Amino acid sequence: MNRITQLLGIKYPIIQGGMIWCSGWKLASAVSNSGGLGLIGSGSMNPDILLEHITKCKNATNKPFGVNIPLIFPFAEEFVNIVIQENIKVVFTSAGNPSKWTPLLKENGITVVHVVANVKSALKCEASNVDAIVAEGFEAGGHNGKEETTTMVLIPMVKKAITIPLIAAGGIGTGRGMLAAMALGAEGVQIGSRFVASLESSAHAFFKNKILEATDGDTKLSIKSLTPVRLLKNKFFEEIEALENKGASHEEVVNLLGKGRSRKGMFEGDLNEGELEIGQISGLINKIESAEEIISTIISEYFQAKNELSNLEF
Amino acid sequence: MNRITQLLGIKYPIIQGGMIWCSGWKLASAVSNSGGLGLIGSGSMNPDILLEHITKCKNATNKPFGVNIPLIFPFAEEFVNIVIQENIKVVFTSAGNPSKWTPLLKENGITVVHVVANVKSALKCEASNVDAIVAEGFEAGGHNGKEETTTMVLIPMVKKAITIPLIAAGGIGTGRGMLAAMALGAEGVQIGSRFVASLESSAHAFFKNKILEATDGDTKLSIKSLTPVRLLKNKFFEEIEALENKGASHEEVVNLLGKGRSRKGMFEGDLNEGELEIGQISGLINKIESAEEIISTIISEYFQAKNELSNLEF
Repeated sequence: MNRITQLLGIKYPIIQGGMIWCSGWKLASAVSNSGGLGLIGSGSMNPDILLEHITKCKNATNKPFGVNIPLIFPFAEEFVNIVIQENIKVVFTSAGNPSKWTPLLKENGITVVHVVANVKSALKCEASNVDAIVAEGFEAGGHNGKEETTTMVLIPMVKKAITIPLIAAGGIGTGRGMLAAMALGAEGVQIGSRFVASLESSAHAFFKNKILEATDGDTKLSIKSLTPVRLLKNKFFEEIEALENKGASHEEVVNLLGKGRSRKGMFEGDLNEGELEIGQISGLINKIESAEEIISTIISEYFQAKNELSNLEF
Repeated sequence: MNRITQLLGIKYPIIQGGMIWCSGWKLASAVSNSGGLGLIGSGSMNPDILLEHITKCKNATNKPFGVNIPLIFPFAEEFVNIVIQENIKVVFTSAGNPSKWTPLLKENGITVVHVVANVKSALKCEASNVDAIVAEGFEAGGHNGKEETTTMVLIPMVKKAITIPLIAAGGIGTGRGMLAAMALGAEGVQIGSRFVASLESSAHAFFKNKILEATDGDTKLSIKSLTPVRLLKNKFFEEIEALENKGASHEEVVNLLGKGRSRKGMFEGDLNEGELEIGQISGLINKIESAEEIISTIISEYFQAKNELSNLEF
């Protein structure tokens, strides 16, 4: 037991990232039933859909689960009201100012965890009285910090700056990665990509299979002129890359991006025209498993690697 | 003891990176005398200077030390002949094809370690019969892989692909970082930036002080249109960045770069016009210490963090 398992009421300090198009009630409840914390990723939902997922998740597990709310999302305020009304116990907020909704959420007895990618935001979180922080490194899929600080460096930097519990994210998908994150000073890990490729994920089968094929160098931080996002390389990625490399205007990039690219790629399985958000760790993911198998494998690898380390003396 | 300490004949599995303008005989011998492996960084030397550093290093330590040779360097062949003639026991090669000089070096009884940034090159190293590999992540200072794979992801990927011993580099400068790297499957660590800021480093005092001031986001992978290199942000960096962002030609970037930029920055201390190569971990470096203090601090932090991990059960 540590501060993260105690705070979130979970067995293992493993949080499943709340990811757009991939983490609905099926994945969140499966993770929570397996001893981790499942998160419903609300960033690709509307209020009705979120409510439906919360209701189904409650029916599927009696363990704690949470909701991830991207604060810059147009529905953020409605979502905050929904989680309060639905008596959700844990909310992970991201992509926005933690001081805006944290007081209201906490007044309603909700544990608030905010996601950051740099030290400055971590300090702001602590000042805003959030309960814990996720620090997410450059290798993570999806939206990413402009500083490009990797998990290996970000975790000890944030750890040094704050006193509240710290969860590491970015590049973690195995028991060895979890142990490394804990060695760096994290008290828990948030895992995204590996759960995208789970049985219970709502990602399209084509996208899941594409993740299994990914190797070293197959993802890249892209769309840096708008908001940096890590993508699996495909036709859409190459087009954005070519445009940005020739010094295109903001407007040209926005036009090429268009609307609904991530839905098209991740949910509808259009591997050419769609936006495929995934982390570098995809290169180590080679099978689609249930959330339960993923968590039990990670935990056994973690303890095996810990034993190996214990035996090493010099 | 593990395969790396045995292979290199050292007490602690800590290698000091062979860095241009920073790691001459003073630093290399100090590291070797403190139980790690010191490397003379030949990439900023000519044959006479290298010979002088080797001679002085031999006089300063009776422990094993090595020489780093960047294989694309014009003097590479002469340097190979020098290390053979001088009976050097360990050579780290980088930036080039490991199959070219490994057979000759090994015939002469030299242990050969090659530096890579991706899985493909790691496989080539193993096929070339090198004795060990350094896998260096995106967060590292200086020259860097085009894949942008971070240490957190690169180490387990390379580990899975090869059977020879693996040394992790990039983002490691503390005992916690070392423990994380070992958790990921490395059997040793190569540390650069923290030794740049050591008493015995030949980096200019202005550059060392600038490293102490660096925080989160103060370095960036740059000059990507030629060879990616991680730089501390300064006037020179901003100029290169502006040029590349507007889609400049190869020739324009080469012209701005000019000659002798790294000497100017790192050795002569011109913090505006010089090229300042350093890793992301600079954000965690806050004092100039001797190599001996650095190594003893890292080792004690390593064991403290290992004990903390042992006590954590769930």
